[in-house]
Amino acid sequence: MAASSGSRSGKSRVIRIALDAMGGDFAPAVPVTGAIEALSELPASCQIQLIGREADVRAELDKHDVSQDRLLVIDAGEVIEMNEKPLAAIRGKRRSSIRVGLELQKAGESDAFISAGNTGAVMAASTLFLGLHPGVDRPAIAALFPTAGKPALVLDAGANVDCSPRELRGFAHIGSVYARDVLGRSDPSVGLLNIGEEEEKGNEAVRNTYELLANDPGIRFVGNVEGRDILSGACDVTVCDGFVGNVLLKFYETVAHLFRGLLEREMEQSVLRGDGMRRVFKVLDYSEYGGAPLLGVRGVSIICHGRSPSRAIKNAIGVALQSVESKLNQHIAAEFASRESVT
Amino acid sequence: MAASSGSRSGKSRVIRIALDAMGGDFAPAVPVTGAIEALSELPASCQIQLIGREADVRAELDKHDVSQDRLLVIDAGEVIEMNEKPLAAIRGKRRSSIRVGLELQKAGESDAFISAGNTGAVMAASTLFLGLHPGVDRPAIAALFPTAGKPALVLDAGANVDCSPRELRGFAHIGSVYARDVLGRSDPSVGLLNIGEEEEKGNEAVRNTYELLANDPGIRFVGNVEGRDILSGACDVTVCDGFVGNVLLKFYETVAHLFRGLLEREMEQSVLRGDGMRRVFKVLDYSEYGGAPLLGVRGVSIICHGRSPSRAIKNAIGVALQSVESKLNQHIAAEFASRESVT
Repeated sequence: MAASSGSRSGKSRVIRIALDAMGGDFAPAVPVTGAIEALSELPASCQIQLIGREADVRAELDKHDVSQDRLLVIDAGEVIEMNEKPLAAIRGKRRSSIRVGLELQKAGESDAFISAGNTGAVMAASTLFLGLHPGVDRPAIAALFPTAGKPALVLDAGANVDCSPRELRGFAHIGSVYARDVLGRSDPSVGLLNIGEEEEKGNEAVRNTYELLANDPGIRFVGNVEGRDILSGACDVTVCDGFVGNVLLKFYETVAHLFRGLLEREMEQSVLRGDGMRRVFKVLDYSEYGGAPLLGVRGVSIICHGRSPSRAIKNAIGVALQSVESKLNQHIAAEFASRESVT
Repeated sequence: MAASSGSRSGKSRVIRIALDAMGGDFAPAVPVTGAIEALSELPASCQIQLIGREADVRAELDKHDVSQDRLLVIDAGEVIEMNEKPLAAIRGKRRSSIRVGLELQKAGESDAFISAGNTGAVMAASTLFLGLHPGVDRPAIAALFPTAGKPALVLDAGANVDCSPRELRGFAHIGSVYARDVLGRSDPSVGLLNIGEEEEKGNEAVRNTYELLANDPGIRFVGNVEGRDILSGACDVTVCDGFVGNVLLKFYETVAHLFRGLLEREMEQSVLRGDGMRRVFKVLDYSEYGGAPLLGVRGVSIICHGRSPSRAIKNAIGVALQSVESKLNQHIAAEFASRESVT
């Protein structure tokens, strides 16, 4: 089983990244621009598949003076809107860009999928069409939180509202592999998000998770971490349920906005427009991180914010490439295969 | 029942605020200094009761050149340490400052209690000695989150790890009364913290709470709010369980620190030390808000951060005074009494 995703990319040296050209608040303009910006930084062996209404995508491409050698347009006549119910939309719209892009990956004709469209639909379709790795109970959204140093990985950031201890342990494993493969942390540490450091703190699910993590030799568990530890580098991977993670992620996204508002109220224009301030806000800018991967599915699926600018799309393409090149999927499969034999 | 707390403060015009002089990382120096700083701003009718080891407190007072007319030292020979188990500590240390201070309030000889000591012990002792208002199932910690405009009230910020829909509805009522009495919001709006705006989002507890709040004529419910809405002023009162609220509060407390670190790395000293920057960080400074009240108990109990500086203690004394003067407890009792007759 573990070899399936590897053999796909092994068949040919070309890495094919599918991008939902109809996803996000500014589609198709922003995804197309993001793809073009990415091309110049991608290796020659990398191809971007733009999935969407062909006429619209080509019209957008025509606005740019760029060689379309490595940009393939794949027609998908339907669009899942942001406010549609995910499952109904996926079932009803067989030619939607989200469904077409993920079916392409399922068929072995694409290596990764990126969308800034309806998050629920991308999650549901990714799980449905790519399936989960054996041993993975639920997929998780892995979000990067900017810090003054290395970004902090928090999962789940919204794929699941309730999580069992076994599922949370699964997130610890998936997150550790991602931290190694894509973030370059050689021996990633895992913290369990809680309201106190002591083992007996928290609700029942969290207390039971503590025990599972503490007794799992495959996880470098550093114990409970609190809200105050996430940005301080206390651990590489912070594990929590998708309710808490989603609230935190969306909360943190507004903090840079609050800072900017306060500074604009109190500081001189010359300071606000200086290079120093630009560097400060670059650190806090989510689009630097591209998107959040849905981990646990047998493939690569990256979810971008609906309001992503083209730079975020470009960076998400980079994350997708790194996920494929690092053989993330083979490593996640191996992580769970080795666990099965132990537990 | 509703008149009990009112009659206490009605007996005499003197308002007596008990301060745990042994609580916090820098006790007794910081609480004593905070009390002295508060005195100059308090009305003449207000008295501060310093609870702690008498010799230690008097030695600290002697360092200050201040009239001790309105500072009463009340001896409490024991101290509950930060790392002690709350219930065992309260039961075992009958002469601890936390217990003495709250028993004083129970006996009608004090109107409010403030502590920067062991949070769990203060919560447990407050509930045990003051009791809960009839109709209140659980007390909640109400935390103020700084914003560019009016601060946002979030509860529960850590008193309860799991909350039933009925308890969450209780927090909405308690929080609304506090927002009116102490924050001066005439018709406070209430949002339910969730991972999406739609009614059907979230876990079961939150979905059921939505229904309760939407059908409660005593609450101005504005629906679900997301993490991104807390700082934007979408509602006056944000209701959530104590796990999520505690994680968010502790997370937010570190954000100003991160921001300061980034600015120090990137900006000139002259900018960092300027008045504009000072005003920015004053907005984000938790000590401006003093402490977080434990609401729902039949009395006034305010919990301060263990690392509170004296300004935070001073401001907590101001919050305590306002809580007593505004008859917060009578209003909370009345809020639940009127609900009982409706539901």
